[in-house]
Amino acid sequence: MPLPYPFKPLVAASALALLLIGQALAEAPGGALRGTGDLGVVIERASGSVALVDTSRREVLRHVEGFGDLSHASVKFTRDARYAFVFGRDGGLTKLDLLTGEIAGRIIQGGNSIGGAISQDGRFVAVGNYEPGGVKVFDTETMELVIDVPATYEKSDGSSAQAKVVGVVDVPGNMFVFSLFEAGEIWTLDMSQDEPELSKFRDVGSMPYDALITPNGRYYIAGLFGEDGMALLDLWHPESGVQRILPDYGQGEERLPVYKMPHLEGWAMAGDRAFFPAVGRNEVLVADTTDWSLTHRIGVHGQPIFVMSRPDERQVWVTFAHPLNDKVQVIDTQTLEVIETLEPGESILHKEFTPRGEHIWISARDSNQVVVYDTRTFEELARLPAESPSGIFFTHRAHQIGL
Amino acid sequence: MPLPYPFKPLVAASALALLLIGQALAEAPGGALRGTGDLGVVIERASGSVALVDTSRREVLRHVEGFGDLSHASVKFTRDARYAFVFGRDGGLTKLDLLTGEIAGRIIQGGNSIGGAISQDGRFVAVGNYEPGGVKVFDTETMELVIDVPATYEKSDGSSAQAKVVGVVDVPGNMFVFSLFEAGEIWTLDMSQDEPELSKFRDVGSMPYDALITPNGRYYIAGLFGEDGMALLDLWHPESGVQRILPDYGQGEERLPVYKMPHLEGWAMAGDRAFFPAVGRNEVLVADTTDWSLTHRIGVHGQPIFVMSRPDERQVWVTFAHPLNDKVQVIDTQTLEVIETLEPGESILHKEFTPRGEHIWISARDSNQVVVYDTRTFEELARLPAESPSGIFFTHRAHQIGL
Repeated sequence: MPLPYPFKPLVAASALALLLIGQALAEAPGGALRGTGDLGVVIERASGSVALVDTSRREVLRHVEGFGDLSHASVKFTRDARYAFVFGRDGGLTKLDLLTGEIAGRIIQGGNSIGGAISQDGRFVAVGNYEPGGVKVFDTETMELVIDVPATYEKSDGSSAQAKVVGVVDVPGNMFVFSLFEAGEIWTLDMSQDEPELSKFRDVGSMPYDALITPNGRYYIAGLFGEDGMALLDLWHPESGVQRILPDYGQGEERLPVYKMPHLEGWAMAGDRAFFPAVGRNEVLVADTTDWSLTHRIGVHGQPIFVMSRPDERQVWVTFAHPLNDKVQVIDTQTLEVIETLEPGESILHKEFTPRGEHIWISARDSNQVVVYDTRTFEELARLPAESPSGIFFTHRAHQIGL
Repeated sequence: MPLPYPFKPLVAASALALLLIGQALAEAPGGALRGTGDLGVVIERASGSVALVDTSRREVLRHVEGFGDLSHASVKFTRDARYAFVFGRDGGLTKLDLLTGEIAGRIIQGGNSIGGAISQDGRFVAVGNYEPGGVKVFDTETMELVIDVPATYEKSDGSSAQAKVVGVVDVPGNMFVFSLFEAGEIWTLDMSQDEPELSKFRDVGSMPYDALITPNGRYYIAGLFGEDGMALLDLWHPESGVQRILPDYGQGEERLPVYKMPHLEGWAMAGDRAFFPAVGRNEVLVADTTDWSLTHRIGVHGQPIFVMSRPDERQVWVTFAHPLNDKVQVIDTQTLEVIETLEPGESILHKEFTPRGEHIWISARDSNQVVVYDTRTFEELARLPAESPSGIFFTHRAHQIGL
């Protein structure tokens, strides 16, 4: 039955009004006002999605799809802790709005990327690429390309080639530092001037495959796949060049078959001690950071992959390589003893402490769960659903050098 | 002219619709969606207001009034970095919503408070009081009183009294630590269980007047007004009790008239070195934190008040007591030399580094300005208006132990 004429404007006006309400509320479903200090993302590698999480309520807020290939994906947060940049294995660089849960931008910037970093001032995001090798720097706001730095190096026969880029980090002075795998070089890219400045350190060692930066941003340490030892660059004294440390680290040790090269980003620094994974041995190694000498070997459950310090440096938590990746162990940094062994689930891949360290979140990929523990009592606090969870990243990283 | 009947429902519906729109938009003016990682507050002591600031744009977003007496006010942020708790000198505890700019709660909880802390898990805010002496703990969400801990101690004549409470900090294990001025005691309050547990350390020294906690939350150090030296509590080994360190610190030194006791919260830790203000001398002192022995004295412009480390620990920035509070000096932590002297304005009161240290914000009270510098080039980047600015606090503190 058609409505009598006088009601038509009413309906129209109401519809308009409702439309306006709809617009005003449009931000609400994903965009309620909230602080972003207790948010985080969990990479769901099988489904190319991420779980957006709240560390205060210990809840998954939502799952967001459309990130492409997320195997070995990593995440950096913008300076305001609103957006996460997700670096995908397919060369995708995706900007996720943590407040609306929407993808705010996505580009395929290279063929095969393995991670990146956001500059100290928050303006630039750098991506390290395997294929073609090099670093691309984008504007974090517009995602426009700022500079493309091919990783071109001279081979021994005089020809030139492109190297895979690994271990991209940000350091104070608005610089990026990264390593060239085939070239055996470490480069710094200074973004503090309008004209970015590139510096190259050559012959640092054979095949740097990953790197770490100390929490104060001073020491850049690259692991070497092709020989023993590690390459250390003191960024406060670049004029001193790259030095070799820990000469027996790697091939020089008698060892088990290496199931997986350990990640270096997870190195734990506690006071003067650095705790780090042995290669191919069921040990966590301890070095004195004043002279980088090896001081202790701590026997653990398997070959360690991530060795991470609780924020107060009183504990170090260790995950292991396949096939012993069903357990997590906790080392007391004073006694150097294993004080706890936990079994959160199958295929433990990654872990992240809450900013002040009261909890730890652990991803158990084949259990499709993220498990939250109290780090003081080791009590299990929550078990959250996630699709093949791997990397876990919380927003406080936005405020830390090199994270 | 009255509207004909058929239009009445239309108007009513529109009005309702507009009302709904209004409600939906109500959050918008102060509450646009935004990350809270680059926000901060500047205390405006003369007007009892705070300036809400954005450290990415280097702008004052708005001024918010209604905080009461803000002389010596301090600020702590909630776990989600959405709210700031402002501790006023009049005993006021005010909760500011950084997103809407509105006061989300305000109580007068004591007669005269000097600061407080938020627990590791984010659930509790503790306030230390002068009058009456004690600590009150509130729920950070509801602001309801959780526990009232009077600072009652036994005097030498056997009678009991209440002491002023100073140096309230949070430490791992969901504990608060604080000092009792007249009593010469340090207490810990464990909030990790349903029944909070109080522990007392007696005879720690005469008149602890302020305290600091090391960045890892391990060492609580109280300055003593009534005698030389400082009181140190190793929270990893409370069974060892309180030890005395730096025996010559304070009265034992020949010195100038003391214009103002230095703040301890600003102690700079850089590697194994602690940089801290001498009492009544134009010096910054350096101690070796492995044995807390005094190793160096660095001559500076005036009597230092705040001695703060840039987040990468490469520089220490120093402000001074009246009448030499017109300058700020920068010390190189490797050479221990003063490398820069800046003159931001009149009556420099406080300073805060951006989370990764690229900038520093400095309050010049009598110039009614906050001045922002690049910490690498010492270039002045911005000069922002503020009413008699004092303390400056950025939200990344939410994620740091003891801040």
